[in-house]
Amino acid sequence: MQIVFLFYQGMTGLDAVGPHEILSHLPGALVKRAAQTQGAIHTDSGLVLQADIAIAEVSSADVLLIPGAGSATTLQQHPDILEWIRVIHKSTTWTTSVCTGSLILGAAGLLVGQKATTHWAAMDRLPIFGADPITERVVESGKIITAAGVSAGMDMALTLAAKISGEKVAQTLQLAIEYDPMPPFDVGSPAKADPTLLAGLKQRMVGKFEPLQKTR
Amino acid sequence: MQIVFLFYQGMTGLDAVGPHEILSHLPGALVKRAAQTQGAIHTDSGLVLQADIAIAEVSSADVLLIPGAGSATTLQQHPDILEWIRVIHKSTTWTTSVCTGSLILGAAGLLVGQKATTHWAAMDRLPIFGADPITERVVESGKIITAAGVSAGMDMALTLAAKISGEKVAQTLQLAIEYDPMPPFDVGSPAKADPTLLAGLKQRMVGKFEPLQKTR
Repeated sequence: MQIVFLFYQGMTGLDAVGPHEILSHLPGALVKRAAQTQGAIHTDSGLVLQADIAIAEVSSADVLLIPGAGSATTLQQHPDILEWIRVIHKSTTWTTSVCTGSLILGAAGLLVGQKATTHWAAMDRLPIFGADPITERVVESGKIITAAGVSAGMDMALTLAAKISGEKVAQTLQLAIEYDPMPPFDVGSPAKADPTLLAGLKQRMVGKFEPLQKTR
Repeated sequence: MQIVFLFYQGMTGLDAVGPHEILSHLPGALVKRAAQTQGAIHTDSGLVLQADIAIAEVSSADVLLIPGAGSATTLQQHPDILEWIRVIHKSTTWTTSVCTGSLILGAAGLLVGQKATTHWAAMDRLPIFGADPITERVVESGKIITAAGVSAGMDMALTLAAKISGEKVAQTLQLAIEYDPMPPFDVGSPAKADPTLLAGLKQRMVGKFEPLQKTR
């Protein structure tokens, strides 16, 4: 079972690394981290990850995962990456995204008429690509599974793990990474956050996604 | 404010990347990812991270974070890393660990008489280093903060973020990574997991930490 993570400059590290910690341990998983060119990938928090293969060398995948990024500039992918995503999608059992990775799926033309989610601050960008925005943590639409912002990738990966390898395997992986979350605050979604705090963050974040336009 | 992540071969990626996604966005944060030598760090899931500086070039830190790893072999750190940890610890405001990273703090001699936690499967190793094992997700003992297994690093990082920059900043960061966790199962800790599933995983994991011995 070939699981391919798309890596790209400016991506958000945790979007990929959260699911990677789960999916890479699935029985029979062969994981590839593919980027436009092999080598160093500078994430948007300064962390540098390594892409071990060029997308040109990957022609199919059972699972494709597209992480998000914190700005439209980064998300405006090169046409060859979007074309690669379209080709790989034809071969997948599951095509997935985390955070604003769904906007890349959208830009590739894969979300027309599909239910999808993304980071709350970018939710109004989904209709640009013909998608039906759903405010849920994990959204399944046919073989496309999209997750909400950053940390939601872990919930998506466990959901996917259960579909691929069964609930027992997924639960074992959850126990192995001791995923019994206890954040010190209960403010992780717009509905739960203090309105002033939300407004401040919204002002800073929403603008970053505004330049996103329909590309196909 | 200098935040230093120790990177090492065989470490668990998410142990570092979860907290990194939070702490790197603290106001005034200057993050360094330090390893024995600068360059590629192969994590225990196949993911490769980049260490951007050698530990020899880092002589102090406000925050030190030690990630864990899935086996005793990997955790038996080179003496020069343990000596470096002891030196840096003298300069820190907070010395922290995620998962079995606390066993490295222990091997460095820093946990004698301290309350600490670690991955549930390695909890019985803490007394080897004179620590008082506590089954909690985040344990504070003086300036040492230890987190439980892998994903607990995010809860630890948010707790730490609030201490360093105040609750509003921590809450904003939690909302920014949309950390409103909803795992599909409620089995993330030994107390919640199915006994058969737990027994099976225990058998596979516990042995990996058994070779750990007192080093100082």
